Amino acid sequence: MVNGKDIVITSRIRLARNLKNYKFPIKMSSEESNNIISNTNEAMNHSGLKFKLIYMKDLSELDKNVLIEKHLISPALAENKHGGAILLSEDNKISIMINEEDHLRIQIIGTGMCLKECWEVANKVDDVLEEYLDYAFDKELGYITSCPTNIGTGMRASVMLHLPALSISNQTEKLLYGVSQLGVAVRGVYGEGTKSMGYLYQVSNQGTLGASEQTLIEKIEQIVWQIVDKEKRVREHMLKNNIDELEDEIYRAYGILTNARTIITDEAMKLLSYLKLGKEMDLIGKVKDKDLYELMVKIQPNSLLSTIDKDMTVKERDRKRAELIRNELLG
Amino acid sequence: MVNGKDIVITSRIRLARNLKNYKFPIKMSSEESNNIISNTNEAMNHSGLKFKLIYMKDLSELDKNVLIEKHLISPALAENKHGGAILLSEDNKISIMINEEDHLRIQIIGTGMCLKECWEVANKVDDVLEEYLDYAFDKELGYITSCPTNIGTGMRASVMLHLPALSISNQTEKLLYGVSQLGVAVRGVYGEGTKSMGYLYQVSNQGTLGASEQTLIEKIEQIVWQIVDKEKRVREHMLKNNIDELEDEIYRAYGILTNARTIITDEAMKLLSYLKLGKEMDLIGKVKDKDLYELMVKIQPNSLLSTIDKDMTVKERDRKRAELIRNELLG
Repeated sequence: MVNGKDIVITSRIRLARNLKNYKFPIKMSSEESNNIISNTNEAMNHSGLKFKLIYMKDLSELDKNVLIEKHLISPALAENKHGGAILLSEDNKISIMINEEDHLRIQIIGTGMCLKECWEVANKVDDVLEEYLDYAFDKELGYITSCPTNIGTGMRASVMLHLPALSISNQTEKLLYGVSQLGVAVRGVYGEGTKSMGYLYQVSNQGTLGASEQTLIEKIEQIVWQIVDKEKRVREHMLKNNIDELEDEIYRAYGILTNARTIITDEAMKLLSYLKLGKEMDLIGKVKDKDLYELMVKIQPNSLLSTIDKDMTVKERDRKRAELIRNELLG
Repeated sequence: MVNGKDIVITSRIRLARNLKNYKFPIKMSSEESNNIISNTNEAMNHSGLKFKLIYMKDLSELDKNVLIEKHLISPALAENKHGGAILLSEDNKISIMINEEDHLRIQIIGTGMCLKECWEVANKVDDVLEEYLDYAFDKELGYITSCPTNIGTGMRASVMLHLPALSISNQTEKLLYGVSQLGVAVRGVYGEGTKSMGYLYQVSNQGTLGASEQTLIEKIEQIVWQIVDKEKRVREHMLKNNIDELEDEIYRAYGILTNARTIITDEAMKLLSYLKLGKEMDLIGKVKDKDLYELMVKIQPNSLLSTIDKDMTVKERDRKRAELIRNELLG
């Protein structure tokens, strides 16, 4: 019934790479940054895959914020208005941020738990790039990165988890503290601090040095499955002991989401999270065929704005959000 | 669009009468109380109308509480387990409480503003009774009653009002204080104090002495129409200035009422009140043919219990209430 697949939303592998003979992006000239962009673009032409090259300078603030909300670029890249760019595959699953904190950040996103598969893709992209670019690599330290925390493999493996049961029962703080002792960072995906909007959390390795990529990935996987197991056990406990309250909360969430005329992101995320929980626990059948995580992304402020032509006030946006949710859930 | 009829729910005339040569109910023997019951019953046999005689001693606590929730008997009558009784017409519109605080309390209930019509019926019932019973009447004081506040006409005229707009905008306290200066009492119908459950208020005359029944009724009518007018003006102001918020609140109320799996009386009353407001302001079409006031009465704790065979815990009752509301609104 409750399924690990439902709890693990996405997996992501990110490799930080830098080139020899160039300053780090924070200090480089626009000539240097343009060089890196065109060399990287050229290198990827040999990959056999189609990539779109997008310069940060060509994007509006809104466009950039949408890409951030979709986790395709980082806020740091968006801020590099002069030298920042991204190479994006057609399916949005492979992206190479150019001139973010590091010269290159190869990022692979996949659905569910698929760190190993993402790593394989990342590794191939890395091989293509390495063939044409001159990486900064030290035999002892590994890949040289702008921030020392990334030195070594330069790899960050992260997994996005939906943890409503642990959150509702106030067990996230303790759990997150526990895993941070194991060299793993956990943070909210949307919103600030440990009280994440929509109970979505990102789990990732903190260190990148002193272990192989495979070892790091296995460690993250192991910890993620432990967290997933805890979330499942709390769900089972709720089914046994609080099913009435839970069912009520979930139906109320559905009632509000399908009727509200105005709704802010925070409330919508919380209610969608309840609904997702209810769907996965077979407590509500009405949303069986709905991708609720996708809807969570769609209702983010900038993603929502991007679907509309005209400028909207916050109030209009909150009405539009309510309308979008009604249409998606009832449509 | 907004209609006085929607705001004035019911009218009620109550006449307090006592018989010569009997002690007041609080002090009388069971022989005396039985005498009064049988004499009154006999007198009403001459009215041409069918009445059911119900002894308080034959009713369970639940039965009595249901009658209280329906405003057919008072808590004081329910407490007179030995000598209390009621004569109830088939349509529940005429009731004669016997051995409440006074020997007789003739009560006529009608829908909407109909104090005059209720008074005419009460007057006829009073005439029938007077023909066969010996009323305690003083030429100067009028009808003698157990409590001095009822002396004179012995009449209480009351009107039940639904005042959601005044309540939501926090204007009831001030208004209610204002009318109390005019010799008119206002109290919540369900719940305690001025924060009435479901924003239902009862307006009635405080004095019964020194004015004719017609004058008292006209005064109450006049004050009621003033309050109704204020409620209407606040609704119009809301339509102009807060229509978005109001529409949202009303649809959310509908969403919760049609989806909640458990709901307490207080919340249900508030949400039904919003929905009634929305219906009357043409903001929601989904409840066009629903009698929401009737539903407000049905979901009261004892009325709800009376529809079920078995004993229920509070938790089960709250689930049953939610189910009843869903069925009524979606059926």
